[in-house]
Amino acid sequence: MKEFELIHQVQQALTEPDCSAAGVELGIGDDAAVLAVPEGQHLVAATDTLNEGTHFPTGTPANDIAHKCLAVNLSDLAAMGATPRWALLSLSLPRAEPGWLQSFIRGFKSLAQEHGIVLVGGDTTSGPLSVCVTALGTVARGSQLQRNGAQSGDLLVVSGTIGGAARVLELLHAGGPDIDRQLLDRPRPRVKLGQSLVGFASACIDISDGLLADLGHVLKSSGCGARVELAQLPYADILADLDDVSKWNCQLSGGDDYELLFTLPPRYEPMIAGWQKQLEIELSVIGQIETQAGIRCVKADGGAFDPAGAGFEHFASNS
Amino acid sequence: MKEFELIHQVQQALTEPDCSAAGVELGIGDDAAVLAVPEGQHLVAATDTLNEGTHFPTGTPANDIAHKCLAVNLSDLAAMGATPRWALLSLSLPRAEPGWLQSFIRGFKSLAQEHGIVLVGGDTTSGPLSVCVTALGTVARGSQLQRNGAQSGDLLVVSGTIGGAARVLELLHAGGPDIDRQLLDRPRPRVKLGQSLVGFASACIDISDGLLADLGHVLKSSGCGARVELAQLPYADILADLDDVSKWNCQLSGGDDYELLFTLPPRYEPMIAGWQKQLEIELSVIGQIETQAGIRCVKADGGAFDPAGAGFEHFASNS
Repeated sequence: MKEFELIHQVQQALTEPDCSAAGVELGIGDDAAVLAVPEGQHLVAATDTLNEGTHFPTGTPANDIAHKCLAVNLSDLAAMGATPRWALLSLSLPRAEPGWLQSFIRGFKSLAQEHGIVLVGGDTTSGPLSVCVTALGTVARGSQLQRNGAQSGDLLVVSGTIGGAARVLELLHAGGPDIDRQLLDRPRPRVKLGQSLVGFASACIDISDGLLADLGHVLKSSGCGARVELAQLPYADILADLDDVSKWNCQLSGGDDYELLFTLPPRYEPMIAGWQKQLEIELSVIGQIETQAGIRCVKADGGAFDPAGAGFEHFASNS
Repeated sequence: MKEFELIHQVQQALTEPDCSAAGVELGIGDDAAVLAVPEGQHLVAATDTLNEGTHFPTGTPANDIAHKCLAVNLSDLAAMGATPRWALLSLSLPRAEPGWLQSFIRGFKSLAQEHGIVLVGGDTTSGPLSVCVTALGTVARGSQLQRNGAQSGDLLVVSGTIGGAARVLELLHAGGPDIDRQLLDRPRPRVKLGQSLVGFASACIDISDGLLADLGHVLKSSGCGARVELAQLPYADILADLDDVSKWNCQLSGGDDYELLFTLPPRYEPMIAGWQKQLEIELSVIGQIETQAGIRCVKADGGAFDPAGAGFEHFASNS
C-alpha cells in the first residue's frame, strides 16, 4: 500500500461527513486544518506520544493503542476542565497492514465519537510503531483548571481507582495468564468530571506518572504540602489480594491510571456526592492540603509510611 | 537524567520569559496550554513527525533535526497563508544525552525565534529517535489559502529552487565526501510568502513529496490539469552538472524542498516581481493550469517528457 492510499484510508475512515457544526472550516486534506474557536473561549492544546515498548507492551492490539493515545490526550484536556473538539494524529508504522490499520481506526473512532471529537489532520509515515496525538479543545476564557491553585485546608480528591494499570503491567511482566488488561489499555478520560469541576476545584491534574509524582506537581506549583490517608486510597479489584505495602506502592507510584486528582475548598465538599451521582463516577477524599511542604502518607493507625518510588521516570536508568 | 529533569531542561531552555504578548494564557508546565486566538481569526493547525532513517539520515546533527521538524510544520502553515504562533513538541529519544539535547534546543529555538513562535507544550519520552511537532497559527477568517481553487489559465508559480534536497540525499547515499547538506537539513519555510499570497493566489501547497505529487494534489482538489515547462523549473547549483533527464527527475519527483507551489490568476502576474523584491525570494512561473486533467511536462523544443517517478512514498515497497 502506498503512503497516499494509506493516508486516504485513514482519512476516509476517520473523517466525519458533516464537520461544519464542529467548528471545522477545513478538515483533513489540505496542508493544515482551519478551525473556529468559539467567541469567549480560549484554545486548550495538549500533545502526547505513545511508543511501543515504552508506553504500551509490544503486541498490544491496535484498537487499544489508538484508544489509549487519544485517551491520554483527552485526559490532559479533562485536567484543564476543557471541552475536547479536535484531534491531530501522527502515526508511524513499520509496515502498512490493512487489518492492523482498520483495528486502529475502530479504536480511535470509537473514543473520538464518544467525546464528539473530529480528526482534522495528521500524517502517516514509516518508522518504529509510535502514535502522537494532539488534542485541541476550548474553555471559557479564564476559567481553566490549573495545577497552581491548591491552598492549605483544601480536600484532596481522586476519581475512580488508582494503581490498577501498574498492577496489570506487573502481572504481564510476571507472565500471568488471562489478565484483564482494560485498566492498562483502556483508560477512561474524565472529561465530564473536569468540566464539572470548573469554578469549584482549586487545582487539578491527571494521574499519568503516579499519585505521588502528580500530586508533587500540584504541590510544587501551589507552594504547599499534603497529607495522604492510605486507607482512603481507592483501589481496583485487581489489587485486592495484595498486602498493604504492595498495594500502597501500586497506588502511590503506579502511573497510567489517568484519573483526575483535584483539590477542593472544604465549602464545596457537598458537591462531591452530586458529581458522583450525576457522572456515575467514584470520587474519594484521600487527604488534605497542608501548609507544610512535602507529602505525608499516613496509615490508618496514624503511623507514617515511606513509599518505595515516586512516579514513573522514562530515563531513570540513566540517573 | 530523569524524565522530569529532562522535561525541565527542555522547558527552561525553550520557554520565553514573557509569553503574555504572544497570546499564551498558560504555557508549558500544566497538563495543557491555554491560548488566545485573536478575534476575527481562525486557528490553523498542522502536525508532522520526522523519524530517524525515514525523514532524516541517521547521524543528522540534533540542531538540524530540530530545525527541520519545526520547518516542515511551519511550511504547512505557510501554504495556508497563516501566521505561525505556537508549537507543541513531542520528542522521543533512545537516551538522555545533555549535549545532543542542547544542540536540539539551539536548533529549535533559533527557527522559533525567527518566526516569533512560542513553544507551549509537549512531552519527552524514551523510544527510537522521533520528533513530532504540532504548529498552531492563525489566519483572518475565510482568507486561508487552499489547494482547491486553481482554475484553467492560472499561472503555476514555485518559490526558490527544487530538486536540491533530493540530490543531496542521492549524493549522501552514494557516499560522496563533503556534501553541503543545507538543502536537505535546513529547509526555509516560506511563511512571509504564504502570508503575502493571501487574496491573490487561487491555490497553494508546499512541496514536500515532490513537485508532481504535490501539484497532483492541487489539481485533484481543483478539478483541472496543468502544463509544466521543464526549462522554467528553477534548480539549485547542486543540480547544475546533471544531464537534463536526471535534473528533471530530481526537480519533478524529489521531495523535501518545502518551497511553495501556487497558482495565480494571470491578472496578478505583475505582483510576482514585487514579491521577489520585497521578500528577497526567487519566484518562477513554471507553467499553467489547464482544463484537461493530468500533468503534461513539456521540453523546450515542445516535446513531451514522461517522468520516472511521481513523488515520495513511504510505503512504496509494499505496493
